[in-house]
Amino acid sequence: MPSHFQSVALHHASRLINHGPTVLVTSAHGGRRNVMAAAWSMPVEFTPPRVAVVIDKNTFTRELVAASGAFALCIPGADIAGLTYAVGSSSGRAADKFAQHAIAAQPGPVLGMPLIEEGCLAWLECRLIPERHTEEAYDTCFAEVVAAAADARVFAGGHWQMQGEGDAALRTIHHLGAGNFVRAGGMWRVGG
Amino acid sequence: MPSHFQSVALHHASRLINHGPTVLVTSAHGGRRNVMAAAWSMPVEFTPPRVAVVIDKNTFTRELVAASGAFALCIPGADIAGLTYAVGSSSGRAADKFAQHAIAAQPGPVLGMPLIEEGCLAWLECRLIPERHTEEAYDTCFAEVVAAAADARVFAGGHWQMQGEGDAALRTIHHLGAGNFVRAGGMWRVGG
Repeated sequence: MPSHFQSVALHHASRLINHGPTVLVTSAHGGRRNVMAAAWSMPVEFTPPRVAVVIDKNTFTRELVAASGAFALCIPGADIAGLTYAVGSSSGRAADKFAQHAIAAQPGPVLGMPLIEEGCLAWLECRLIPERHTEEAYDTCFAEVVAAAADARVFAGGHWQMQGEGDAALRTIHHLGAGNFVRAGGMWRVGG
Repeated sequence: MPSHFQSVALHHASRLINHGPTVLVTSAHGGRRNVMAAAWSMPVEFTPPRVAVVIDKNTFTRELVAASGAFALCIPGADIAGLTYAVGSSSGRAADKFAQHAIAAQPGPVLGMPLIEEGCLAWLECRLIPERHTEEAYDTCFAEVVAAAADARVFAGGHWQMQGEGDAALRTIHHLGAGNFVRAGGMWRVGG
């Protein structure tokens, strides 16, 4: 399958999660890797592009992120909502979830984090900014985006393009809780 | 207009922003009040219900929040996307934006924060948890939710109910950037 991914300028990277999509957090260290789902992430700055994401301190992901100082956020499209929920419901400590679910991943250009493009609309490779207090108190990890790319069919010129109903596979998903998702609906412009 | 708002149990409050809606941040102190839009917020804990929201240190809202130690998040429906964008594009330092835009607000039950129900789907009244470092470095304010309510037509039994296309006014909005919004689309359930 040909990839439609093209790199995204770093000053546009925070926009990829501006609208609150559920993300996959991928991580790797010392020959091991993992993928989990996270509904709780947000940008905190455009330039430099910085994000915050909540990663429970009991997860295997948190262990890998602490060891490597890096992670990636991959943004799933609606076609892989089931997979997103599945990797959010089991631990990767015992088994490699990439192998278990036949998820293809390639190493990121800057930090070598596992990046998922098939079924995803974008990814952000991130370097952890160590903040011991907020990591401990709120499970909140801050990071700087060092590389990003998106499917050019839905993110072009630094903007999401989600006009009309479009192809459901090319819409971000937003977890309401308990396995219930909504899809990003037809885009419209106000003001300006 | 009759209000459809009913209180939300505190252990369900974080779910109100689980899917990344754009919110209105309201604040008040010493006889002054303000309302601004924020796309960057997320839950960080269910119990106790805690949230993080990015509020630029140069805003009037930030000044009021620092002085009162409180704010509220009100979740706009699609009917007031234009108003959301408008209050996100001007400062409330010179003029009261509630008066300017004829926005009705009532004082919150615990902290007296201005709560908006007309056109909104839910609100969360929040007590700031002072975190000087993250407020300075990332404009990120942590807070605990002390009261919450939602429109019972779309949030019932602790869950958002957004089946089908439904009434656009009863859908949350998600800012893509530059005045472009998407609406939460038809809900579906995966797994379980």
